[in-house]
Amino acid sequence: MLGTRGGWQALRRCASLPQVVRLRVSEALGAQESSGEVKVQGWVRSVRSQKEVLFLHINDGSSLEHLQVVADPSLENRDLTFGSAVEVRGKLVKSPHRRQNMELRAETIRVVGACDTWTFPLKMKERHPLEYVRQFPHLRCRSNTLASLLRIRSEATAAIHSFFQDNGYVHIHTPIITSNDCEGAGELFQIETSKEAKEKTQFFNVPAFLTVSGQLHLEVMAGAFTHVFTFGPTFRAEDSQSRRHLAEFYMVEAELSFTESLQDIMQVMEDLFKTVTSTVLSKCPRDVELFHKYIAPAQKDRLEQILKHKFVTISYNEAVEILKQASQTFTFKPEWGCDLQTEHEKYLVKHCGEVPVFVINYPYDLKPFYMRDNEDGPQHTVAAVDLLVPGVGELCGGSLREERLPFLEARLQRYLDLRKYGSVPHGGFGMGFERYLQYILGVANIKDVIPFPRFSHSCLL
Amino acid sequence: MLGTRGGWQALRRCASLPQVVRLRVSEALGAQESSGEVKVQGWVRSVRSQKEVLFLHINDGSSLEHLQVVADPSLENRDLTFGSAVEVRGKLVKSPHRRQNMELRAETIRVVGACDTWTFPLKMKERHPLEYVRQFPHLRCRSNTLASLLRIRSEATAAIHSFFQDNGYVHIHTPIITSNDCEGAGELFQIETSKEAKEKTQFFNVPAFLTVSGQLHLEVMAGAFTHVFTFGPTFRAEDSQSRRHLAEFYMVEAELSFTESLQDIMQVMEDLFKTVTSTVLSKCPRDVELFHKYIAPAQKDRLEQILKHKFVTISYNEAVEILKQASQTFTFKPEWGCDLQTEHEKYLVKHCGEVPVFVINYPYDLKPFYMRDNEDGPQHTVAAVDLLVPGVGELCGGSLREERLPFLEARLQRYLDLRKYGSVPHGGFGMGFERYLQYILGVANIKDVIPFPRFSHSCLL
Repeated sequence: MLGTRGGWQALRRCASLPQVVRLRVSEALGAQESSGEVKVQGWVRSVRSQKEVLFLHINDGSSLEHLQVVADPSLENRDLTFGSAVEVRGKLVKSPHRRQNMELRAETIRVVGACDTWTFPLKMKERHPLEYVRQFPHLRCRSNTLASLLRIRSEATAAIHSFFQDNGYVHIHTPIITSNDCEGAGELFQIETSKEAKEKTQFFNVPAFLTVSGQLHLEVMAGAFTHVFTFGPTFRAEDSQSRRHLAEFYMVEAELSFTESLQDIMQVMEDLFKTVTSTVLSKCPRDVELFHKYIAPAQKDRLEQILKHKFVTISYNEAVEILKQASQTFTFKPEWGCDLQTEHEKYLVKHCGEVPVFVINYPYDLKPFYMRDNEDGPQHTVAAVDLLVPGVGELCGGSLREERLPFLEARLQRYLDLRKYGSVPHGGFGMGFERYLQYILGVANIKDVIPFPRFSHSCLL
Repeated sequence: MLGTRGGWQALRRCASLPQVVRLRVSEALGAQESSGEVKVQGWVRSVRSQKEVLFLHINDGSSLEHLQVVADPSLENRDLTFGSAVEVRGKLVKSPHRRQNMELRAETIRVVGACDTWTFPLKMKERHPLEYVRQFPHLRCRSNTLASLLRIRSEATAAIHSFFQDNGYVHIHTPIITSNDCEGAGELFQIETSKEAKEKTQFFNVPAFLTVSGQLHLEVMAGAFTHVFTFGPTFRAEDSQSRRHLAEFYMVEAELSFTESLQDIMQVMEDLFKTVTSTVLSKCPRDVELFHKYIAPAQKDRLEQILKHKFVTISYNEAVEILKQASQTFTFKPEWGCDLQTEHEKYLVKHCGEVPVFVINYPYDLKPFYMRDNEDGPQHTVAAVDLLVPGVGELCGGSLREERLPFLEARLQRYLDLRKYGSVPHGGFGMGFERYLQYILGVANIKDVIPFPRFSHSCLL
């Protein structure tokens, strides 16, 4: 059946075309020597028309850098403007300019899609603030900053998958729709069909919600695989306009079986952070540089220092002592048994030298039912850990899970079942992916590190 | 601040422990030589007590194969049963048995978590049918078949990310919550907060739904990056008990800019399928073998044949002619302008030799507004493609998108904006990940290829 009509026609069409190599901008810029005829496609980032020569800069999203196109002024045309989509054919040659490797000597320039520069909200050679481009969710990826962010986000995503894969973890797609509320972590989104609303029936026979965490589902899997992870969207219906909260955000979560020490969990958090960050720094140096130069100066040095040293660890007890002895007055008075507030977290991070800080062993009553009792007193502390980082606050949270059946009795039947059939000590953690990106890049507002932000009163596109 | 109290205590605790290497079962099985003392942790898959010797099989999810533990009968104890979690310390030695490489000579066996074998729904050495284990969503990952499936799913996920990353695609997290309905693709899930229900307000100010496709969001990104992809959950609120439908399922979607030929899109689909499948076959040979041996005999040869040959392509016109000339009578009479039904798809795939078949150029009126008019007549056909595969039906769907503003006028304003500012010919496709797994493994029911299936009347866990 190979070579039916449709197939052959296509083959014949291909064969009759001249073979011109299509290069991406990043490939063209990295070429080692001059080439035969090539074709480069992308969007015009600048047009400079001189008497003798026409200069264009072309970008196709493959790199922050543009490719310089040098053309005869006769190739200029009305539609060849900032923002237009073009296909340029020509030869790649060594550039005479020090700051670029190769340039493209154009033979033909075809405007594939014109751009109305009067109404296009981005302007040539302008550095638009993040707040400005945020108004155009469908066009902001055309700005340098967001394009860099999205390339970094993509590399970080790949690096997270690789980190776990390389360490023998099984990836699990934990469900988005769930009938349980993991830890009463804030307000839930409920889902329903239009039919339900009308007929008072339920699609799933039970109330169904958007997940707030994949932890319970990972724990199921940790009863069969010693190392599992998930990396997907989670949801909170909190009516918050904070620069640290979204209604939809991504979380990396891992669960480790046969783990009897909180330090093992913390080691994975630290390794994850350092490995992924090193990968991003080495794979996207120019993109990261944009942030460290224009958005968060000094962040680069701080990050490099942090990658070299072991993260600091303090206990909750110690944290409360540090806060009590602080010269600063807090809105919320620090007291053993009370949750750490943002002002407290900030102070602790500052006190430790503006580096990531693990706080461990929280009061029993502050944490959810599944965390493991440290047995240092009657229901006194649990083996919980939060990782606090400068500027962002809580980046990761984790714990040893209570694996002992008697400690969990009178709880959810299925959760108990997991403890009946070969229960093992285990623990895990979650890391907010947007907060991670905010931290390493020094981006103040979480809405600028996710492609399509969702928060209260806003679901654009 | 390094070396605060919590940190040092942990270090001292570690230092005082004897250093015993922890090995996973897969590492132990693959060891090249005998070892010093090691520790292996996992769940007991069989216990065989003989007069002189005690045999255990241990599995920790790192491979389908178990590690054989050989111990003195004195190490036996009441809790050492099928399903219990154990930690075994001992020395790894070459096995005298032909079918295994290494075995573990136990020095100590510690039962970490007992298992009540009377109530545990899985039984020793039984091959439980998929329908049976499906009743226990929290325990079925302990069965060989589901554990193999989940390892394969994890490898396939990694291979999909690698395929796109290696080919220069930027990964985009397209949103789950959206205020638009991509193509009216079936019934939507709507989301709301408990507050909304009470107070008649809307969290996002507009009605919000669970996404049915990331395509429109990828198209936004295809205006800045020439190659983008997403891989995430999508949703349909269809009241279907079919073995091919879920309410929540995963989709791989890609979008390519400056693409003027449907063949380019089809080439990516075919490359994706072949590359990912080859990777899975070579990385999980034993896991895949389980399926090809017990679940879908003959699937292995068929798959290997398919990987060697180019996929077949037929046009919708040809498809209708083939169906009209069929000796078979159909429930739905084949007619130009009508959608292909499951019975038609099955026949076409069979007619082409039970291989994947691209069907291209569908009638204009059958497809959504954004597909590109082929201009082979007034609104006659569009550049759309479906990839049909044996046993599963539609695996992928794609199209060239209509990039010409006049063709789209009077539509959604933002969609139009994308055509105003440097519009480019582009196209893309989506592949159902569960259907992909069903196909390569020959699994009849889609509920068996996803960790936690959601469908009408069922949202367990």
